[in-house]
Amino acid sequence: MDPDAIAILGGTGDQGLGLALRFARAGRDVVIGSRKEERAKAAVEEVLGQVPEGRVSGFENAEATRKAKIVILSVPFEHTASTVKSIKEALGEGQILVSMGVPLATAIGDGAVRTVGVWQGSCAELVAGLAPKGVHVVSAFQNVSAHRLQHLEDEVECDVIVSGAKEPREAVMALCELVPGLRALNGGPLANARYVEAWTALLIGMNVRYKVPEGLGFRLTGLPE
Amino acid sequence: MDPDAIAILGGTGDQGLGLALRFARAGRDVVIGSRKEERAKAAVEEVLGQVPEGRVSGFENAEATRKAKIVILSVPFEHTASTVKSIKEALGEGQILVSMGVPLATAIGDGAVRTVGVWQGSCAELVAGLAPKGVHVVSAFQNVSAHRLQHLEDEVECDVIVSGAKEPREAVMALCELVPGLRALNGGPLANARYVEAWTALLIGMNVRYKVPEGLGFRLTGLPE
Repeated sequence: MDPDAIAILGGTGDQGLGLALRFARAGRDVVIGSRKEERAKAAVEEVLGQVPEGRVSGFENAEATRKAKIVILSVPFEHTASTVKSIKEALGEGQILVSMGVPLATAIGDGAVRTVGVWQGSCAELVAGLAPKGVHVVSAFQNVSAHRLQHLEDEVECDVIVSGAKEPREAVMALCELVPGLRALNGGPLANARYVEAWTALLIGMNVRYKVPEGLGFRLTGLPE
Repeated sequence: MDPDAIAILGGTGDQGLGLALRFARAGRDVVIGSRKEERAKAAVEEVLGQVPEGRVSGFENAEATRKAKIVILSVPFEHTASTVKSIKEALGEGQILVSMGVPLATAIGDGAVRTVGVWQGSCAELVAGLAPKGVHVVSAFQNVSAHRLQHLEDEVECDVIVSGAKEPREAVMALCELVPGLRALNGGPLANARYVEAWTALLIGMNVRYKVPEGLGFRLTGLPE
């Protein structure tokens, strides 16, 4: 397990690929995970196409999980539980599992401007309930536009609210600083993920109403310098 | 009923008083409502102390409701249903009732950083369910800091997400423009109030973590000019 590597499961999807591009550009080792190894390898080629100097590798999800201290779950909400179950054996004490999923109603064939209720309170808490003991679950990146992440030449003007226990939370906040424009904010306990996740559905609706296919972000105002 | 007047029920509370000050300063007729007329009159004196040129009057809630086309509900969440029931007879066809309440868990003796679930989905939809037919319910102002509203010399750097049917929503969006710094955004259907209300609990927690007693706000980023 490389303490500096970042694994992105579902790194073949839009938002996972965007994070992979940004972290590779920032010079970090990136491990892309997918249900099928060949799809992970194809995503690696896509990243290297834009970031030729990148250190990027691709594996099946469980194998990718074994290779990095921080593992980001970037799968559609409806695949969250099955993905966590499939990597349980690969997860070890002290690893950080990042939940960036949002319980959008697309999971049940309804629209992305609405959410479904999650018994545990949020996608992040669903993940925490399934993760083995000793694995730290942190919530982050839900509101960051995939489109803006993928445009490497532009800053991503957005705050990232990061929730979870102090030490792993700070490790994930440090990741945000790798992406120009992102600002990490301490979102407190993991349960607050429910507010951040829900906000995504509102932003998706605002993207439609204001015709911003690139995706809106947000900044908190009034913070001390 | 004065089509240009703005009634604020619970205008004796921090946030209601802040809106009263701002609307009075902007030259609008302001009607402060309270459960007790003498408390409304005392709030009028407070507003006039800071805005001597203001046109401000104070009445018991039902009487205040009869005097303005736009009626803003600025009462604690746990008094929302009883207040709407108490003004039902006073509300008439075409009036706009603005829900700015948030179902904070303080309503059940728990903390303001958490919410309680509302059967209808949100405080705004609870209000809509109780309002007489022909009255338009609009959701707005949940995230605007009372402290910043009351400091008339400063701009209130915050976006206001306004939800509800088109015509009444636009009337409430126009009110936001009366307060320097506020920017009104079209939040779509009333049901989206649940996202905006919940965000308040997150912001209250952020105020504590970042030691900003004046209250944080937010701006959406990436909007077209």
